[in-house]
Formats: sequence, C-alpha cells, structure tokens
Amino acid sequence: MGRTSDARERILSAARSLIETHGYSALGVAEICRTAGVPKGSFYYFFDSKESLALAVIDEHWTGQKRTWTAALSGDAQPLLRLRRLFEETAAGLHAAQQSCGTVSGCLFGNLTLELCNQTEAIRTRLQEIFDAQVEMVDSVINEARERQEVEVAETREAARAVVAQLEGQVLFAKLYNSTDRLGPLWQNCLALLGARAPREAVAGA
Amino acid sequence: MGRTSDARERILSAARSLIETHGYSALGVAEICRTAGVPKGSFYYFFDSKESLALAVIDEHWTGQKRTWTAALSGDAQPLLRLRRLFEETAAGLHAAQQSCGTVSGCLFGNLTLELCNQTEAIRTRLQEIFDAQVEMVDSVINEARERQEVEVAETREAARAVVAQLEGQVLFAKLYNSTDRLGPLWQNCLALLGARAPREAVAGA
Repeated sequence: MGRTSDARERILSAARSLIETHGYSALGVAEICRTAGVPKGSFYYFFDSKESLALAVIDEHWTGQKRTWTAALSGDAQPLLRLRRLFEETAAGLHAAQQSCGTVSGCLFGNLTLELCNQTEAIRTRLQEIFDAQVEMVDSVINEARERQEVEVAETREAARAVVAQLEGQVLFAKLYNSTDRLGPLWQNCLALLGARAPREAVAGA
Repeated sequence: MGRTSDARERILSAARSLIETHGYSALGVAEICRTAGVPKGSFYYFFDSKESLALAVIDEHWTGQKRTWTAALSGDAQPLLRLRRLFEETAAGLHAAQQSCGTVSGCLFGNLTLELCNQTEAIRTRLQEIFDAQVEMVDSVINEARERQEVEVAETREAARAVVAQLEGQVLFAKLYNSTDRLGPLWQNCLALLGARAPREAVAGA
C-alpha cells in the first residue's frame, strides 16, 4: 500500500472517528494505522506526533464546519432566522451521525477542549481560535439584528458568547442523554438571551 | 503501608487529581497507586476496575458539590439571588483550584461526560442522574421565582435545563481560556434566559 496519495486522508478519517468514540488519550498510532489500512511508516511520514495529528483533525473538521456555519449565517434571510438555521443544521448533522454510529458524538471541539486543553498549549490555542471565530460569526449576525432593532443586548460580543456557550452546553446534554431532542429549545433560548421575540416569519412557521 | 484505613481516600484523591489534569483514559492503576503512596494490591482491594474507581470519584465529587448547591440555593434570600449565589460559588471554587494548580480544571462531570459517556453506560447513567438532580434543584428555585412573578418562563424544567447548559458552556470556556472571568456574565445570562430583571437588592449591590 505504501505512501499512497490518499493515505493521509485515511489516517485523518480513522483518527477522527477513533477520537469521536474513545477520545484522544486512548488513541494509539498502531490502532489508527490498522483502522486506516496503512503501514505504520505512513503515519510518521505525514505526522510528527499524535499532537500534530490532532491539530490536523481539528483543522479539517473546522474547515467543514466553517463552511456549514457560513452558509447558515449568511444570505438574505432575517438575521434571527439565520441563527435558527445554524441550530437546525447543527441538530441535523448530529442526528445524521447518530443514525450511522448509534450515539450522539457531540462537538469535536468541545470534547477536545475538556479532554485536552490543559495538556497541550498548541491544541488549546487552536481551539481558542476556533471558538473565537464562531463567536465572531454569531456576533456579526447579532449586530445586524441590533441595527434592525430586533434584539436588546448591551454588548453583542458577550451575547454571542452566551449563544455559543448555550449551544455547547446543550450539545453536551444531547451527548449525555444520547438524544438530539435536547437541541430543540436552542432557538427559544437564543431569543431569550438576545432579548428578542421570534420574527413574524418564524411564528408563521416559514 | 498496606491497606491502611485512609488508603481508599488517598486513592480517590489521587485519581480525582489525575483525572482533572489528564482525563480518565490516560489514567493507569500504577500511576494512581504511586501518586497515592499505596501498594497496587490496595487498589484492587477497594476497586474492581478503573470504571468502579471513576464511579466512586464521581460520587464523592457530587456529595461535596450537592452540599454547595444546596447551601447556595436554599435559605431566605430571594430565589433569583440564590441562583446568583450558585454562580458566585462556582466561580470562587474554580478560581481557588486555579490558584493552587495553575489551570481552570472545569467541571468534572462535564469533562467526564464528553470524554466517557459514549464508552461506558454505567458512567453515562450516573452522570445523567447528577445532571437531572442539578436541573431539579434549579427548577425548584425557578418555580419559587415564578410564584413571586419574578420570571417569565413557559416551562420551568426547560428553563432550568437552559440555565445548567449555560453554566456548563461557560465553564467550558473558562477552562479553554484558563480564566474564571468567563463566568462573570452567568448571572445576566441567567436573568435573560428566565425573562427576569435583576432584583432590587442586586441592583443596589446587596
């Protein structure tokens, strides 16, 4: 098999799936290579260490998630409805993964934050950058909503942090109770945090 | 040293501290015994497995935390001020631990939920019971506040879940950014989630 062109992708995919089921600490290079179907030499050809692999898994996951977040949060819909779309997409993604692997895997970034950030500064820094970027994206939508006088918040950045914290907390519960139903109240909770009423389109079910 | 009467306590304390710094998966029986200063035989005298040790660590931590929560949430103060006291005590506890070990360790239950609940059903069930109990305690205070017409919530249980989710989410950020300042907005966010205004005593700084 050797250093085939897709070996790196297969290692990343195996590592991501093993991290989702057993966490990072339980991960061994031999198991990753067995799951990926590549010889051990391939691993060290692509990655210096388990840490550099974890950083690559994080980056790859964020590339995909950023695309989802950007699509959900942009466009012509009212700002608050775009936030609702973000929650719906998050729930749909977790639900689809649950259907295929049997359990709600939660948020990879939240999982790794709680497992790892006090062990490696490189991973802590990368995860901080990602959550900063998420807060920035939500902040920008809240700002638009504030300009339209649809929310009542003293400080949009703090409000965006509260929304992302609420998302992380409810995703934690979705994982704990193995049920994406836990994500149902996210939209109402977000409106409450923003001192907002549901836009008319949302009330009408649009 | 042998099976001294405090060996079980020392194993629990070592395990708790090792779990807080490196997580559960990275934990080895030999390391626990070395840290606790007890022979390996002692471990298996008290615990069948790493899982039964983790359950004992969880139970012991919950015994202490339930005491703190009960003290904060009961008494004659207005219900909303008792919720504020819970957030203040949580921040103070995390801050004190940060002073002694250098990092914000986060919430042991949240950490173990994200690391472990998809690996062992016994731990998942125990953590569900603990979060159910936390939600129940907060629900009871929100009910009191609703009777006093101090909050506007459709469903107190769902509101209590939102408050505990907000707490877990912000504690995650406190750990990620290694700063208990992240817990500062909890009180205002809780008031927003409950459709409440700060009680007069709180505004006056009492």
